Amino acid sequence: MVNRRERCRERLQQAALELFTRDGYTETTAVAIAERAGVSERTFYRHFGDKREVLFGDGDRLVGLLVDALPHPPEPLDQALRDALSALAADMTPRRARLAQRAALIRAHRELAERELLKGQSWAEALARVLTDRGVDELTAAAQVEVALALFRTAFARWVTSDDATDLDSLIDQAYAATGRPLKGRRAPTSAGS
Amino acid sequence: MVNRRERCRERLQQAALELFTRDGYTETTAVAIAERAGVSERTFYRHFGDKREVLFGDGDRLVGLLVDALPHPPEPLDQALRDALSALAADMTPRRARLAQRAALIRAHRELAERELLKGQSWAEALARVLTDRGVDELTAAAQVEVALALFRTAFARWVTSDDATDLDSLIDQAYAATGRPLKGRRAPTSAGS
Repeated sequence: MVNRRERCRERLQQAALELFTRDGYTETTAVAIAERAGVSERTFYRHFGDKREVLFGDGDRLVGLLVDALPHPPEPLDQALRDALSALAADMTPRRARLAQRAALIRAHRELAERELLKGQSWAEALARVLTDRGVDELTAAAQVEVALALFRTAFARWVTSDDATDLDSLIDQAYAATGRPLKGRRAPTSAGS
Repeated sequence: MVNRRERCRERLQQAALELFTRDGYTETTAVAIAERAGVSERTFYRHFGDKREVLFGDGDRLVGLLVDALPHPPEPLDQALRDALSALAADMTPRRARLAQRAALIRAHRELAERELLKGQSWAEALARVLTDRGVDELTAAAQVEVALALFRTAFARWVTSDDATDLDSLIDQAYAATGRPLKGRRAPTSAGS
């Protein structure tokens, strides 16, 4: 159920990734991105505040996806969070190539790495807030969310840098197992798309 | 065993915190910090690259402290990391007031928050590297370090924002317990100093 607005947004993101990768992040302008996506500069700025935002425009949707994937009530909490990570993995799986390109850009530019980390922190805070709203005590919510996201990041970093395309959800399993807590997610169906 | 160079560095850090808190981070210059610390601007720049660095100048020492606190061999790994966090907590405990001031500044300025997160990531990478050098497999090292540091951050955030000065090491215990892994650190003696 992708509407026209979302398709335009995606086209801009795709165009930006291609240009950043081909010509360099610093060298690429918002105008060039708009041109490649076949839209006006004004349209670009209707979707994104600046060219950096193009790389982070998916964040709110992904947090929403995590939140939606949390069962009511979120118990046992560690399993609820593990399940949410499976939903996130299923959403990301069809976009591995693009996410790997994006991750390479982020690693190469400190300003992007900083923004990525800050977004990660805001994800953690948003998730913890949802859990405390549902009755989880504050420290437990924060600690469990931080651990779940830490293990997700560990798995994700491997997923986008490894040559063999091991399934992201399996890498999350491995990260959990590596901490002595073999916790598997309820496998979500992989979303369609490219 | 604090030598003259280190004392000068500390004086600059202290002066910077005072001025940042009193006059604002943006408004404070390196010159003003040097003046308050009773040294020349040139001396300031011998110690720190810029005023932002004054807030992060302790990072390398703290990573070194974590690394030194890891037993040889680091087994069981989760306990080894928990013990290292206790050593870090002991080092930080006498400086709670200053660390709380610093944390408040960091929360208030996005550029500082970003730098803090990036430093945190470099800590995780440094620690994981030490562990893989000591024979721990890569995924296990990354996952366990990320979890330990995530729980440390959770505890630390509470420590520097709570009114009652609960012991940092006890907060780390609580964070671990909140994830269902009650793992206590080998208490390190609290360092002297203010």
